[in-house]
Amino acid sequence: MLEKTTRMNFLYDFYHSLLTPKQQSYMSLYYLDDYSLGEIADEYDVSRQAVYDNIKRTEAMLEEYEEKLLLFQKFQERSKILNKINEMLKEESLSRQSLIEAVAELEKLN
Amino acid sequence: MLEKTTRMNFLYDFYHSLLTPKQQSYMSLYYLDDYSLGEIADEYDVSRQAVYDNIKRTEAMLEEYEEKLLLFQKFQERSKILNKINEMLKEESLSRQSLIEAVAELEKLN
Repeated sequence: MLEKTTRMNFLYDFYHSLLTPKQQSYMSLYYLDDYSLGEIADEYDVSRQAVYDNIKRTEAMLEEYEEKLLLFQKFQERSKILNKINEMLKEESLSRQSLIEAVAELEKLN
Repeated sequence: MLEKTTRMNFLYDFYHSLLTPKQQSYMSLYYLDDYSLGEIADEYDVSRQAVYDNIKRTEAMLEEYEEKLLLFQKFQERSKILNKINEMLKEESLSRQSLIEAVAELEKLN
């Protein structure tokens, strides 16, 4: 189980283009630049509660997008297969059959 | 340049989960099942113009999603590399270096 911050960083990476500029600013300050809610509130001259509510709503939106599009899940699945293929390519003799099967798995995820 | 219908079918495939149930129904009847605007209008007891407007709006939304997320573009780029790898795997002797390079390209797109 990934920690929430790591997961949010990934989801933000995949779906930030679907967020409003304000949502992007708050999320990127909070999750990427590690600002506190109070610091973001000061920066934008709004209440700490307003920042908190906005970030909570945005987190829920990111999870909804992931539920619908599965970009993060598919990224993880593809990464696993790519790692496997890279391991195969380091072996002394290449197994054509294993490579063909791994590439077919990647195609199913494309 | 892909024909519009083919492109819309692909975009629908990638982004339909972000559409409303009504948008999904109209788009899928029009683009997948090849219904005419009039037939959809009859089916839903609305005007032909209403169906037309809804489909035009949905097409614009799909293009906006693609502009933001590039899922179709990345799918095409990955497909190209996967085809190249499949060709390599058919060759009599496997080139480890070419395979490593092609897999690195795939990783950049992941």
